[in-house]
Amino acid sequence: MPEKPSRGLADVVAASTALSDIDGQAGLLFYRGYDINELAGATTFEEIAYLLQRGAPPTRAELDGYLAEMAAARSLGELVAGCLPAVAGRQEPMEALRTLVSLASADDPDKDSNQPGPNLRKAARLTAQQPVLIAAYESARRGRPVPEPDAALGLAANFLLQITGTRPSEREARFFDTCLVLHADHTMNASTFAARVCAATLSDMHSAVVAALGTLKGPLHGGANEQVMRELEATRAQAQTAGDDPVDAVGTRTAERLKAGEKIMGFGHRVYKVEDPRASHLRKMSAELGSASGDDTYYRMSRRMEEVVLAEKGLYPNVDFFAATVYHYLRIPTDLFTPVFSASRMAGWTAHVIEQHADNRLIRPDSEYIGESGLTWVALGAR
Amino acid sequence: MPEKPSRGLADVVAASTALSDIDGQAGLLFYRGYDINELAGATTFEEIAYLLQRGAPPTRAELDGYLAEMAAARSLGELVAGCLPAVAGRQEPMEALRTLVSLASADDPDKDSNQPGPNLRKAARLTAQQPVLIAAYESARRGRPVPEPDAALGLAANFLLQITGTRPSEREARFFDTCLVLHADHTMNASTFAARVCAATLSDMHSAVVAALGTLKGPLHGGANEQVMRELEATRAQAQTAGDDPVDAVGTRTAERLKAGEKIMGFGHRVYKVEDPRASHLRKMSAELGSASGDDTYYRMSRRMEEVVLAEKGLYPNVDFFAATVYHYLRIPTDLFTPVFSASRMAGWTAHVIEQHADNRLIRPDSEYIGESGLTWVALGAR
Repeated sequence: MPEKPSRGLADVVAASTALSDIDGQAGLLFYRGYDINELAGATTFEEIAYLLQRGAPPTRAELDGYLAEMAAARSLGELVAGCLPAVAGRQEPMEALRTLVSLASADDPDKDSNQPGPNLRKAARLTAQQPVLIAAYESARRGRPVPEPDAALGLAANFLLQITGTRPSEREARFFDTCLVLHADHTMNASTFAARVCAATLSDMHSAVVAALGTLKGPLHGGANEQVMRELEATRAQAQTAGDDPVDAVGTRTAERLKAGEKIMGFGHRVYKVEDPRASHLRKMSAELGSASGDDTYYRMSRRMEEVVLAEKGLYPNVDFFAATVYHYLRIPTDLFTPVFSASRMAGWTAHVIEQHADNRLIRPDSEYIGESGLTWVALGAR
Repeated sequence: MPEKPSRGLADVVAASTALSDIDGQAGLLFYRGYDINELAGATTFEEIAYLLQRGAPPTRAELDGYLAEMAAARSLGELVAGCLPAVAGRQEPMEALRTLVSLASADDPDKDSNQPGPNLRKAARLTAQQPVLIAAYESARRGRPVPEPDAALGLAANFLLQITGTRPSEREARFFDTCLVLHADHTMNASTFAARVCAATLSDMHSAVVAALGTLKGPLHGGANEQVMRELEATRAQAQTAGDDPVDAVGTRTAERLKAGEKIMGFGHRVYKVEDPRASHLRKMSAELGSASGDDTYYRMSRRMEEVVLAEKGLYPNVDFFAATVYHYLRIPTDLFTPVFSASRMAGWTAHVIEQHADNRLIRPDSEYIGESGLTWVALGAR
């Protein structure tokens, strides 16, 4: 007899994974056994994608081979290129990415195979392709050519260059690379879980990643970073109009919203009981970038929000909260914040699909029926 | 401390639903309290879609309103129409449908709202649109115009007409309608669960349905009906070449495959311990259509397979097994079998999204970490 449902599967162990681990009490996150506090700033996103997808940190030669695979995947496939102008004109960023990645399978020679070799190749391609799709979308909707990437730059720096059209400073590139490292994987989060549910029917990696993109789109998941920035922007604009200090204004407004029972985006996490370690790194980067930009108002507003939410609700900021201002200071358009998250999480999603296919079982839970019973069907004419 | 994972969430209650219920011991399936044995042949797919999405069987006036909503949604949106020729030429059916439904959100005025009214409207539209997308895809890849629908026919008959180009007989239309009724919902199957995981981040209905389509694509789920037909076709062709009786040949081959430990598609189900009630109805329809076609070889081959699998493994046919031959006798191209499944399950998927959004909680399970621990990161140059 099935038990009562655990709403939202909270605390239910749905899968085994060797990819990442969270110590929610201590506030620690590990990728394949490496503490992200050690990784942040000490490695590149490409090395972490390799680590997650292929099992161990690459040697120089292995990394060179992986980077060559990624470079070969940077040109848009024919079907994507053909549909991109129409899609960019009619779909919002995450909606468009869901479509573009679905289109991209057509030009992947391994699309139909779930075997280890094809899956590893697809994982590298999808990870290389995602920043390119985002930059191509951004350029297409603004009616300008995609900025040429620079072969001397890594994925993070080229991504910033191609989104913003401006070559990033050394610090900007390094911080953004760290952002990508920090978002690469996070155990059984909703989008990763959706990818695994999909892959577990022995569907293909593109289908699983498309499912993940649609799931990340939601404001209770990846969509939260954009919501955080919109809240800061709206509050600052109102304060400006009213002649109030924006930092005080956001503190008052946050307290009022909490009193009204509203959810404040960017706070709290089902697994962490203390501060999310990713938030600690992002907070530091936000402070430094804000200060370097000459206007750290959004950073100071974020700090005030953080104080109010902690005092009133005991909730800590999660990964989305300080990512918002970091991306803002990096001049990324606000509606591309969730796409940027997807470019990083692609490393984890694809690694989870590889892991699921390597030791698969269909993910098919039970449900509890709460409707009516024993009804008799009456024909349409007699209703 | 989380417990050991239940592999594949077998017997774990993941959600509450008032949409459908399975009695796995008795072999019964209910839609909102109505036994499908009572519904099969006594209602139309449109009434069942209404029942699932809106909560109760429609009166004549309610059904008329619903049919009018559906009729208005039958023309392809501008973005879908523009990309369809390229997609149909480059993507396989389920791959293409994943893309086309993702494109379709652009032309839905309610795409961004998860409120009850917009969700109900989107559910009706997506259900009306799916057969049209399949027929448009089929016509586009064959380079012919889409057959005109007949306003006097219901969804099932028009669907057959538009896929095959031939007006179905009264019996064919009625049987196909029953097929759509039988596939409309099935508790927490993998594609429906993927849709709910997606919707639970407060992502939108199109994203959830795209996730479901990618999940249904897998051969352990919707893809099974096509695999069943391919197995029958291949075995019959081999028997013909060898001058063997195809019924005997499939019996021998099935026994050999079982001995070799291979999985036979179309048999067994995680929830039913006895025969799947949908299989009983489909078996009867397969027998009658096979006999009416003048060549019931595939039906007789299916019966032999069924006997062998039951004798050797104690497994019963599931919904996919006899659906294969029924669809074959209805002259549906084999690679459209899973798309046909999707056209029916769209009623259930959309109803589950409505239900999830009406009482939402993020679906975010835990995982068990099985990798290495306490590793120290070594810089690239020192590896």
